[in-house]
Amino acid sequence: MRIVLDAMGTDHHPAPEIYAAVEAVRRWGDPIYLVGPRDVLEPRLEAYPDVRDRIHIVHASQVFRHGEKPGQVLRQKPDASIAVGIRMLKEGEADAFVTMGDTGGALAYALLILGRIRGVRRPALIAPVPTRTGKYCAILDVGANAECKPEYLLQFGIMAAVYVEHLWGRENPRVGLLANGEEPTKGTPLVQEAHRLMAASSLHFVGNVEPKEVFAGEVDVAVTDGFTGNVVLKTMEALTKLITDALKEGLTLSWQTKLGALLARPGLRRMKSRLLDPVEIGAVPLLGVNGLVFIGHGRFQGPAVLSGIARAREAVAMDLVGKLRDRIAASLTPQEDAAS
Amino acid sequence: MRIVLDAMGTDHHPAPEIYAAVEAVRRWGDPIYLVGPRDVLEPRLEAYPDVRDRIHIVHASQVFRHGEKPGQVLRQKPDASIAVGIRMLKEGEADAFVTMGDTGGALAYALLILGRIRGVRRPALIAPVPTRTGKYCAILDVGANAECKPEYLLQFGIMAAVYVEHLWGRENPRVGLLANGEEPTKGTPLVQEAHRLMAASSLHFVGNVEPKEVFAGEVDVAVTDGFTGNVVLKTMEALTKLITDALKEGLTLSWQTKLGALLARPGLRRMKSRLLDPVEIGAVPLLGVNGLVFIGHGRFQGPAVLSGIARAREAVAMDLVGKLRDRIAASLTPQEDAAS
Repeated sequence: MRIVLDAMGTDHHPAPEIYAAVEAVRRWGDPIYLVGPRDVLEPRLEAYPDVRDRIHIVHASQVFRHGEKPGQVLRQKPDASIAVGIRMLKEGEADAFVTMGDTGGALAYALLILGRIRGVRRPALIAPVPTRTGKYCAILDVGANAECKPEYLLQFGIMAAVYVEHLWGRENPRVGLLANGEEPTKGTPLVQEAHRLMAASSLHFVGNVEPKEVFAGEVDVAVTDGFTGNVVLKTMEALTKLITDALKEGLTLSWQTKLGALLARPGLRRMKSRLLDPVEIGAVPLLGVNGLVFIGHGRFQGPAVLSGIARAREAVAMDLVGKLRDRIAASLTPQEDAAS
Repeated sequence: MRIVLDAMGTDHHPAPEIYAAVEAVRRWGDPIYLVGPRDVLEPRLEAYPDVRDRIHIVHASQVFRHGEKPGQVLRQKPDASIAVGIRMLKEGEADAFVTMGDTGGALAYALLILGRIRGVRRPALIAPVPTRTGKYCAILDVGANAECKPEYLLQFGIMAAVYVEHLWGRENPRVGLLANGEEPTKGTPLVQEAHRLMAASSLHFVGNVEPKEVFAGEVDVAVTDGFTGNVVLKTMEALTKLITDALKEGLTLSWQTKLGALLARPGLRRMKSRLLDPVEIGAVPLLGVNGLVFIGHGRFQGPAVLSGIARAREAVAMDLVGKLRDRIAASLTPQEDAAS
């Protein structure tokens, strides 16, 4: 299995990426293609003679930085590490690309170089959220498309159903539409029309869902537009941090609470395992582009980057792109099929 | 001060409402007007002879139930408890109305009976969210308008600024626009245009904010449309419950964790005080209608209903509606003023 890793994506690049590349080779044996400036990477890899021959440096002279505008810099940086990595997918030289770089940049390069899976209107970013049952619910789009049309939302549901069925082993996954109330009349015109389309589709569509149903684990997939999904995901991340920080602060209040925390440690560990953990999630796939592109946070450390590689390996193993291609093709009307 | 309380709003009505009415009279001395069916309320009040003469039953023969469609039932239920209570505001017989009934119903009756403050395009529901600083940030709209125009969002910011300035004592409150990124180019066309309007206004506008800035306490007000705001608020409620339930489960895992929890109790209490607490919040005002209408959750128990009364009393004391009226009038262009 050939995984390409962007060496320049994290805020502290390339140290977390080098950690992840080294550990990935040690863990799985397969080579890692590490994309970045050769003069930066070469000397840093000398410290790992046991895996050095299975980490292949792929030179990239440029970096697409976090916050840069794809519209302005995409063609000025044909040799950005993201571009070089994605081009390897296009050329069939690798099976999946993993980056902690800018989401907008990765999306733009992926669309430019790989294009979309035939019939897909818009790619979407999917992310897992924890639920009361201990299982994840997949939410999408969490940031690829601030503006959506109802047909996009239907396709997000179809793609996510493939994802959770094959990567998480959920049979006949339940798909909900995130809304401000359960009645089909709730929501914006976008949500109302998407509801109609999804209800008429072959999806196992359970209707509108509110956040409490999502966290209760009543759906396997929650579909929303990329603006709402992005704000909701960032709300979860920020609120989880607020609460866990408040807990830490409370538990270090005095020697007594510290002793209590020590005794309660098994319970606290169990609690932590139920929460949104970016390290465990690692990276999320961009569904709908014609190749496997996984994107993580710029602030990730090595273990989270390694998780991103693990997620990408799972997607390669079950041929996610092939399965998406089949399911999307089957969902198209003859008209849509002819137009795509 | 004359507060009217809907006796029929909570899921367990009228017990929580009667508790709140009784405690409100005991605490503040002022009479409470309790709206609902006289034959139901009369016998239940007999148990409280110490306050009985200051709880005035206002008969209402109908109830607008949670989940009913205002469009279908509004005129069929002119004597719903919500309608009767709001009519007392209109007639000058009371200073504020508090209900745990259906939000859509309360909004519809308020618009029908009280109308909007002159110049206000749309009323909005405002809610406090906890931040890292220990202070609240006000977020709106959390559910009155699923569809918004940019000018509505500007007015939401203006109204919320009045609210946090006068009710929370924040001078020159910082107003942010909730978005999927800090750059002014981020977001939907609605967000982009609202950004332009807010930047050109007299607000202390700090630009787009993401959830992490909201929870960091970097703004006093976060403005968004009623769809996003509702989903975000419900996400916060559901996630807070998920995490605190996971904590409880972890701490009751064994005798050892239970002992730890006992020792850590002061710290856990301190943590709890930093979280979203619907009981403390009690009820939130509908900003922009021509009167003080406070709405809480149907699932509230007595103490939360009592908090709702406390919030309403604060708003009466500082003449919230008068202050909103002045600030909105000052914000209108001569054209808008003539049109309103």
